[in-house]
Amino acid sequence: MGQITKMSCIQLDEQDGLSALREEFVLPPEVIYLDGNSLGVLPKKTSLQMKTAIEKEWGQGLIRSWNQADWIHMPQRLGDKLAPLIGANEGEVIITDSTSINIFKVLVAALRLNATKNVIVTESANFPTDLYISESVITMMGCERRLIPEGESNIEKFIDDSVAVVLLTHINFKTGEIYDMERITQKAHMLGALVVWDLCHSVGAVPLHLSQHGVDFAVGCTYKFLNGGPGAPAFVYVKKSLLPSLQQPLTGWMGHAKPFNFDIDYQSAKDISQFLCGTPPILSYTAIDTSLDVFAKVDMHVVRDKSIKLTQLFIDLMEQECADYQFQLITPKDANSRGSMVSFTHPEGYPIIQALIANGVIGDFRAPNILRFGIAPLYLRYVDIWNTVQYLKKIMETSEWNHPKFKTREAVT
Amino acid sequence: MGQITKMSCIQLDEQDGLSALREEFVLPPEVIYLDGNSLGVLPKKTSLQMKTAIEKEWGQGLIRSWNQADWIHMPQRLGDKLAPLIGANEGEVIITDSTSINIFKVLVAALRLNATKNVIVTESANFPTDLYISESVITMMGCERRLIPEGESNIEKFIDDSVAVVLLTHINFKTGEIYDMERITQKAHMLGALVVWDLCHSVGAVPLHLSQHGVDFAVGCTYKFLNGGPGAPAFVYVKKSLLPSLQQPLTGWMGHAKPFNFDIDYQSAKDISQFLCGTPPILSYTAIDTSLDVFAKVDMHVVRDKSIKLTQLFIDLMEQECADYQFQLITPKDANSRGSMVSFTHPEGYPIIQALIANGVIGDFRAPNILRFGIAPLYLRYVDIWNTVQYLKKIMETSEWNHPKFKTREAVT
Repeated sequence: MGQITKMSCIQLDEQDGLSALREEFVLPPEVIYLDGNSLGVLPKKTSLQMKTAIEKEWGQGLIRSWNQADWIHMPQRLGDKLAPLIGANEGEVIITDSTSINIFKVLVAALRLNATKNVIVTESANFPTDLYISESVITMMGCERRLIPEGESNIEKFIDDSVAVVLLTHINFKTGEIYDMERITQKAHMLGALVVWDLCHSVGAVPLHLSQHGVDFAVGCTYKFLNGGPGAPAFVYVKKSLLPSLQQPLTGWMGHAKPFNFDIDYQSAKDISQFLCGTPPILSYTAIDTSLDVFAKVDMHVVRDKSIKLTQLFIDLMEQECADYQFQLITPKDANSRGSMVSFTHPEGYPIIQALIANGVIGDFRAPNILRFGIAPLYLRYVDIWNTVQYLKKIMETSEWNHPKFKTREAVT
Repeated sequence: MGQITKMSCIQLDEQDGLSALREEFVLPPEVIYLDGNSLGVLPKKTSLQMKTAIEKEWGQGLIRSWNQADWIHMPQRLGDKLAPLIGANEGEVIITDSTSINIFKVLVAALRLNATKNVIVTESANFPTDLYISESVITMMGCERRLIPEGESNIEKFIDDSVAVVLLTHINFKTGEIYDMERITQKAHMLGALVVWDLCHSVGAVPLHLSQHGVDFAVGCTYKFLNGGPGAPAFVYVKKSLLPSLQQPLTGWMGHAKPFNFDIDYQSAKDISQFLCGTPPILSYTAIDTSLDVFAKVDMHVVRDKSIKLTQLFIDLMEQECADYQFQLITPKDANSRGSMVSFTHPEGYPIIQALIANGVIGDFRAPNILRFGIAPLYLRYVDIWNTVQYLKKIMETSEWNHPKFKTREAVT
């Protein structure tokens, strides 16, 4: 590979079939946004759609909008709209609550379904909320948890026939490593275990094939690559054949077979609606609705192709431009094992990220020493990667990061 | 009491010290809105504040807004803003998740705290979600539930020293009956039980004194009398002295003592933040923020005084104008036992409500035969009550309700 130049990056942008999508989003001037895997950007159409939901549906329609604007079916309707992005069928996905709460629901439902076994397998390197929720679930359900140590490459050897459910995150939140969903799911099924895949860093970033791979349960958020808004409600996917036999534990009135009968006893809906609990926060759903419209226009394989090229460019440019500065790549070099992010460790990771942000390049820091860069192919350009690496080089060359102002920790880092 | 006339109602409006507050809200022309206890109306300032949150905080600020717009502390900040409305102290209230999910959290936390006892007392006439969640909790926690039958007037006799926790709704969602929070809480405490009060129909409608009454836990929603928007996130109140010893079961990362440490093991926050679970839906929080501003301007005792006068007027006018039409008042006649609603049963309740809605008077129907009218004193006028009863009289006189179009049930009724 020859020398990469700014001009070669600009040429790649000119040849980019997705470049027009950038126009769909609000992108603040003077900012290169590499944190779309933490909070996605604002789609341009969201503002108007929110205004309609607030002023027309709520303000004028009032309670009538539960029927007239069909608020009541938004969780299911938006679930069906999201389904193609994860390779699921109609009726298998619902938007509800948060990822954390949905993990609780599906873990307990899976344990009840697979009641002759009593081990949950997950891994230390999982996103903390998956660990914390599974910790609570084992206390409540009287079962055991088997933690795969960080850095272990052979996940499958931890699955045996005592395992009720395997809870893994498809793309690791720190390293960006992708697990082989198909192979691990097959192994789990062979041994009689159910699987729960956390797709927070996958949905909207890589093509997914849940039905094809026979996945039992999945959860994920809509506020990262899907651009659904800060803390937007999450989703649950359940394989259709399992739906009639499940009992999820958060039995709020919206999950009842007939919520408006106001029966005294709980009777679970038999379809995906059983994963609803309380009344859904409609305004936050509205933002998801618009954000999914953008994805209706794209082929996820084309998105993936650009994502791989952008992450590869980042890795190559760091080698070319920043080899002197102690950055250690922790994202897999093999593109097929890599999600839509690039992460490095650096002993001074925190102030370096702060200095970058001060220069308008927004990545994020993950304790203890990780610089994490989310690559959202719908709105990032190749030249953005070039410029990012140039800023990073400047910050290191001039020791700009070594200023006291960059060392104070904020609430969210 | 002499004959009530439209003119006497208009005079009451002219003397009403709260009448200016009506200007704070969007009220669709041609509508009399008596469903503010199901979905509150839109405060006029909400639209602009939402636009700022969407376009400036999310669109321009992006991930930085978690710190710069202090999104990260919205659950606590809005909790503190709501606290005076329920007579709670700073640090005792947090906005999070839904009422249903919060009932699950506090019930399990209460059972764990009061672990030598194993009975939950609640009542058949409770709102269904309270029943459904408590049904799930007894299964998960291996305890028992004692259901007070509907119509039972002596609640306290069901509380004995085997009771771990009493879960009651302060104002009944069908009849509007208020329970004596102070007396029942005292009785429960005397026998070693903890109390959970559901305040969905109380907050923003009647003055509340949780701290003064020594209440242990409370939950409630923000989308009824508080006007926080459709399905807006709910609140949890916990008596401060209990906070350090609780273990709520939905241990998502935001409830961790140090969420951004990304520790492997869960360590609960010791303050009210422990009741957070996943990432909060910020856009829905923003609407709550504005809606609470309106309440900062009012004295809840003045609101209560008007509420009583409006509900009394409704009851008196129904006797005066509609005595011939089989409406049975099910709301307590004693104003002190009555929340901010008036309910009647009628064998043709469903089509009558549909006919009223077609006339622009929005009340709601609750199965099997209840016509329910929410009275929100911040934006309702005495003349609205007069007009409502006149529409009802016309619908009955002309048998307008007896048209097939009013008999088809919709999804939400």
